[in-house]
Parts: sequence; C-alpha cells; structure tokens
Amino acid sequence: MIFIKIFVLLSLATLSISSYAGNENEHFWGVHQGGITNGEQTQTYFISFDMVSNNREDLIKLLQSWTLTAAEITNGPEKLNPHLSPDEPSLESGAAVGLSPKGLTITFGFGPSLFEKNGEDRYGIAKNRPEALVDLPRFPGDQLNIERTGGDISIQVSANDPQFVEYAVRKFAKIANGVAEIKWAQTGFNGSFKKGDTPRNQMGFKDGTMNIDVTKPDLMNKFVWVGNEGPEWMRGGSYLVVRQIRISLAHWDDMKTSFQEETIGREKVSGAPIGKKGEFDMLELEAADEQGNVITNENSHAAMAAPETNNGAQILRRAFSYDNGVAKIAERWPPWKQLVTFDAGLFFEAFQRDPRTGFMKIFARMSQIDMLNQFTTHVAGGIYACPPGVTKGQFIGQQLFIN
Amino acid sequence: MIFIKIFVLLSLATLSISSYAGNENEHFWGVHQGGITNGEQTQTYFISFDMVSNNREDLIKLLQSWTLTAAEITNGPEKLNPHLSPDEPSLESGAAVGLSPKGLTITFGFGPSLFEKNGEDRYGIAKNRPEALVDLPRFPGDQLNIERTGGDISIQVSANDPQFVEYAVRKFAKIANGVAEIKWAQTGFNGSFKKGDTPRNQMGFKDGTMNIDVTKPDLMNKFVWVGNEGPEWMRGGSYLVVRQIRISLAHWDDMKTSFQEETIGREKVSGAPIGKKGEFDMLELEAADEQGNVITNENSHAAMAAPETNNGAQILRRAFSYDNGVAKIAERWPPWKQLVTFDAGLFFEAFQRDPRTGFMKIFARMSQIDMLNQFTTHVAGGIYACPPGVTKGQFIGQQLFIN
Repeated sequence: MIFIKIFVLLSLATLSISSYAGNENEHFWGVHQGGITNGEQTQTYFISFDMVSNNREDLIKLLQSWTLTAAEITNGPEKLNPHLSPDEPSLESGAAVGLSPKGLTITFGFGPSLFEKNGEDRYGIAKNRPEALVDLPRFPGDQLNIERTGGDISIQVSANDPQFVEYAVRKFAKIANGVAEIKWAQTGFNGSFKKGDTPRNQMGFKDGTMNIDVTKPDLMNKFVWVGNEGPEWMRGGSYLVVRQIRISLAHWDDMKTSFQEETIGREKVSGAPIGKKGEFDMLELEAADEQGNVITNENSHAAMAAPETNNGAQILRRAFSYDNGVAKIAERWPPWKQLVTFDAGLFFEAFQRDPRTGFMKIFARMSQIDMLNQFTTHVAGGIYACPPGVTKGQFIGQQLFIN
Repeated sequence: MIFIKIFVLLSLATLSISSYAGNENEHFWGVHQGGITNGEQTQTYFISFDMVSNNREDLIKLLQSWTLTAAEITNGPEKLNPHLSPDEPSLESGAAVGLSPKGLTITFGFGPSLFEKNGEDRYGIAKNRPEALVDLPRFPGDQLNIERTGGDISIQVSANDPQFVEYAVRKFAKIANGVAEIKWAQTGFNGSFKKGDTPRNQMGFKDGTMNIDVTKPDLMNKFVWVGNEGPEWMRGGSYLVVRQIRISLAHWDDMKTSFQEETIGREKVSGAPIGKKGEFDMLELEAADEQGNVITNENSHAAMAAPETNNGAQILRRAFSYDNGVAKIAERWPPWKQLVTFDAGLFFEAFQRDPRTGFMKIFARMSQIDMLNQFTTHVAGGIYACPPGVTKGQFIGQQLFIN
C-alpha cells in the first residue's frame, strides 16, 4: 500500500527538468548523464570503486578530475594522443591512439556507502543522502557475492569498441590511485543488431520490447528522472539498480522451445505475445483459450514484469549480456552435476525515479514466482544515485557538496 | 645446435601445398583453416574441450558434426534461424537471429592428449601424432594454471560481433554434450583499428609490426604451413601455441614512457625503432650512440623477438587482448601490495610449421631475459595441431582417421 501511495505522489509531482537530451557520444556535457537514454552499445565496462581517502577535498578533486577526463575522451579522438614526456609516467596509456570513441557514454553513480559507511559520515554529505537511495533488501534467491556488491562510486563506460572501453576504465582507475580503489567490475556486450531492432539476448529472445520509450518526456519524467521530490542535487538524475544475473544457458538450451516460450511469455522468433503475430501486439494477460485457460502464464517473465501486474510501475531497462568464459559451477537441478560450464548471463540495469516504486516493487514479486528464476541467479549488484548531467565548468555531483 | 639443424632442413624442404588461401568469412571450406592468415577480428572466443567418450566413432561423429556446423554458420546468416519444433529442444539458441557472422573464422586444433592420455591410445591415433606436436616444457616464470592448460581439442571462434562469437561457441559445446566437456576458455578482443594499421595493444604499443607477411607464400610455407616433413594429415595445417599472458597494466602505466620504450625496444606512438621515424624502418640491433652504447637494449622485447637474434626463426603471431574484469592479485614488486586490479593482458597465439623451431626456440631465451617479463605472467595455454582446411564433404582432421 505504501508503494502505491508513493507511486501516485510521484506521478503527480511537477518537474523542474523535463527536456529529453539524447546524449550520444558527441558531447559529455548535458542535462542528463549519457548511458541512460541512448541505445545499448556493443561493449560496456561497469566498475565500482571504494574510497580509501576519508578526506572531503580528495573526493571533490577526484570527481573534478574524472569529470574533465570523461569530457575529454568523450568529445573526440583528437584528445587521445599520449602527452608523452619521456621522463615521467603519462596519464595516457596510448591504447586508444588510432581508435574512435564510437558511441561512447560514461555514467557516474554514488552508492549509499559514499554517504555513510560503518556509521561514519566521511565527507559531510550524509545529510544529503536521498531517501530513495535505499539499502536494497535481500530478495528471495539472492546469492550476491559481498565482494561484488555495492561500492562507493560506480562508473559505467560503454562504446562500440572493446579496447576503447577498457582504455577509458583504466584511465579512470589510474586517476583514482591512492584516493579510491577498485571494488568490483564486470564487462558486458550486445550483438550488433540493426538500429531500431529490439536486441536479442543470449537466451535467443528479444529483450526490451516493453521498455519505456525514451523519446517520450512525459514517460521519462514520470518513471526515470528524479523530480522535485528528490534533493536538488539529484533532480534530473536517476537511480541505477545493477544486477549481474547468471543464466544457466546450457540448461536453458536443453528446454523445449514451447517451454521456453511459456517461461518468457512471448514467442521466440517474432517476440510477439503468445498466439499473436507482431512483437508490439498488445500483451493481453487476461486472454484465454477455448478451454478457458489463460494463454500467457501468469508466472511468465513477461506477465510478471508488465506494468498491469505491478500497479503501473515501470523502470527503464538497459541490458548487456556478460560472458566470463567458463567456470566450475554446481547445477541447481537434477542430476545436480558439477561441471565446467558457461559463466555468462545478463548484466541487468534499471534506471528509475525511485527504486522503491521501481525495481523493488517489481522485483519483490518476480523474485518469488517468476518462472524464469529456475534458470537465473543474481550474483552481484548494487544501487547508485546517478546525478544529473554536467554543465561545462562543473563537475559530476557538484551540488552534493554545496552545503 | 639441434634447433639450427632442423631449421635449415625445414627451409630446404619442398612443399606440396603452396597456395595462399586468404580464408575470410565467406567460406568455411578451403585449403587452410580460417583464423590463421586473416586479420584479427574485434572479438574472439578460445575454448578447449576434453573428450569424455573413449570411443573412436564418437570422436569422428563429433568432428563431423562440428565441421558441418562450422560450415553452416560461416556460410551465411540465412542458416541461422532456429529450426523450432515446439516439442523438442532446438540446437539453435536463436541468439544469432538478426546478426551477421561478420568476419567469422573457426579454427580447430588437436592437443597432444587427444593422441595419448595417461598412456592410453583411446582412439587408435597415437601412431599419427606428429613429432612436432611436442609437450611444451616448463619455461622460466611459467605459472600456468593446470586447469586452464591444454585440452584434447581446441576451437577458436573469431568475428566482429561479440554475441555471434558467443552464440557459435555455445552451439559447439551443445553438440559436444556427452562426448566432450569444456576444459577451459578465454574470450578476447581487439580495438577497431583502421584496416592495414598495426593494432595497438593495451600497453599502448603497436603489436605485430614485424609479423610474417601472410600474403607471401614463400614465407608462409617456410614458417607457418606444415610441409612434407609432417604426417600427411597435417600438411597445409599449422601448429598453434596459445599463451594467456597477464600483464600488470597498472604497474606498466606507472612507468616513465622512456622506460616503456626501452623495454619494448620501439618508440611508443610511431612504433618506429628507437631513434628512427617510421614504424617499418629497419630495426638495427647493432646501432650505437655517440658514446658507443647500443641504442636498442639487447634485452628489449623487440630485440629478443627479432629473427636476427633467433637464427632466423619466425612465428606467425595472432594477438588478442583479454579482459576478465578485476581480481585480487598479489603484486610482484615492492611494496608487494595485494589488491583488486585488472585481470587483463594478452591472449597470445603463434602459428608455426614446427613449435621446436618456432615458439620454443624464440621463447626459450625470451622467457629468461626479456625486459618485458617483469610485467607479464603466463597463466594459461596449450599447444594444438591445427589440421589443414576442409573440402566440402570432408570433416576436420579426417585424414587422421584413415589408418
């Protein structure tokens, strides 16, 4: 009931920032951060840092330096030549010389622990922690590795070139040296699908058919961008929930196609709702066959995720696959083999105006009874407050430090 | 001395196969396998299998099925639609529907253990094991993880689409189900450098300047393709040595550019020999400065790898970077920090006519005194006999089973 109330309040709120800025790679500066509204690139690198310095000025300097670097490498390849002085180490690895920052986006986020850690307000910003930046509860089935969960600051770098992405992440890590240390990281990818096509994931299904239309400011303001209900420094920003979801791909591949479709709640090749033709045909959850049986299983992934079954709640999904090669894994189903198999799955990201009315609301039920759960395990993740975009001359999260 | 002798003998041998077939993605069938002479793609997936069946017919059937699949997925996307029967599992995951096999190559190799394992000749092929398919010795500094070393059969899938590569590997693994199991795997990448440009690696240096020119049949026959000295089933094939080489990138990035250049033996931005202008200017290892000091350090990587210092030995390098995100790693230098840092480096591959006169010869000395060794650790690898290409109607390695 609390969720519904909050949801209604949010829907009615008027917003100070309502313009849609389709941050592409050309510019880093903008109303919103990049990497939220633009289409998924073929490569991503998510990295989470913990501060090692407890000094407020160190944190500010780090954010200033990261901001300038992000702008520099986003704004064009002409900035990427190593500034080599033979007698000192260069900040530039040189690994991007000759490459272009294809579709590059860089997204910064602040985890709850940046505001308060072990009861300590290290940077004098605890009072500015937004209510919406909750500590996520443990959901049924969660098997998050504590060493790969959370972190003080997240950076996500995405582009259409794997080396450029790796180059940028390493540069951010080098800048952090002595002030922040790497906590965890995960790379990801997407296939080069035709522009406008809904990408398919490793399970072979289209992924994102029902996603929020980012070109509609009313939807973005309602579900994605923080409005007046949030602290000033977060208005025009968004909350990011990240979940690394291992998928038992070999097990999935052994299932009948009809069972896969029942599990997802959509047809495999077309992406259409069961029994329909087109990917974007209406998903009618009440529809029944001649015997009166519901056509789309109510525990199917599509039904569980649909706004209709979540009191209208929606999140902006941004999905990459991940592939860590292979690992020794114990299967969760008979005959419970222990084998070397694919350590791969979905690097799931949801942007939302408020996680309490977004991811938490939707996933509370899904984590219990979504048919897809038998193939998935959440192994890492975090929640981060992603501030709004940056104007030239400012640094990311600057308003957080104003008082 | 033995090496030199063999080298001379090889150089004089006449060859039955001398045509250069630039296997691109268009066709799987050909004189040589793909993935050897063509330029590195942006994505690769190396996977090594161990047989679990000891039955010769099972091995043959597996190779037949893998060959047909490789041909099917290489020859065009029109073959990639899932052949869906609702009531049975499909061999097709569907993850490639809508994708193109951009620059796809698939390369099969047979490890020493396929011929004999624990003294057992499981498939009646021990007598066909080529002398050149040696068990690699332990080199100084080797820290190969035994669980990520060797394997009975290797498959390498490379293309310019990360999802297509993963799709193909998963399909090969599914086909192997019950007959062979995954031993180890590693993904890799390259930046999208301009065609014809020597790619830069993560260290920021051009990588491959001195590589064998694959368009020169005389060089390919001399150094890469197996000739009459090998067993019939290997003629036109090549031996692949794989080494996963972790690079201490954070440590490397902390070095002065001049020290990096001294270590590599080349200038960073241009790739030219020290003191020269052009990438392809002659590397003159004897050249000295006014004080009589050698300009290119004799322990530099370029000097150590040069044919002049290896009695003319050459290998065909094929390099991908790898990036496994981050891991807890103990540094090898003061103050010996243990930290979460980049688990990344080079997925090194060398194709050669004979590993004894190729990789083993060159690396025996390099592993001892190459300046680059202080930044590198060999953590995984293997040696594989890659048979020649396949004619339509045949299967990979077919001649191995003729008698």
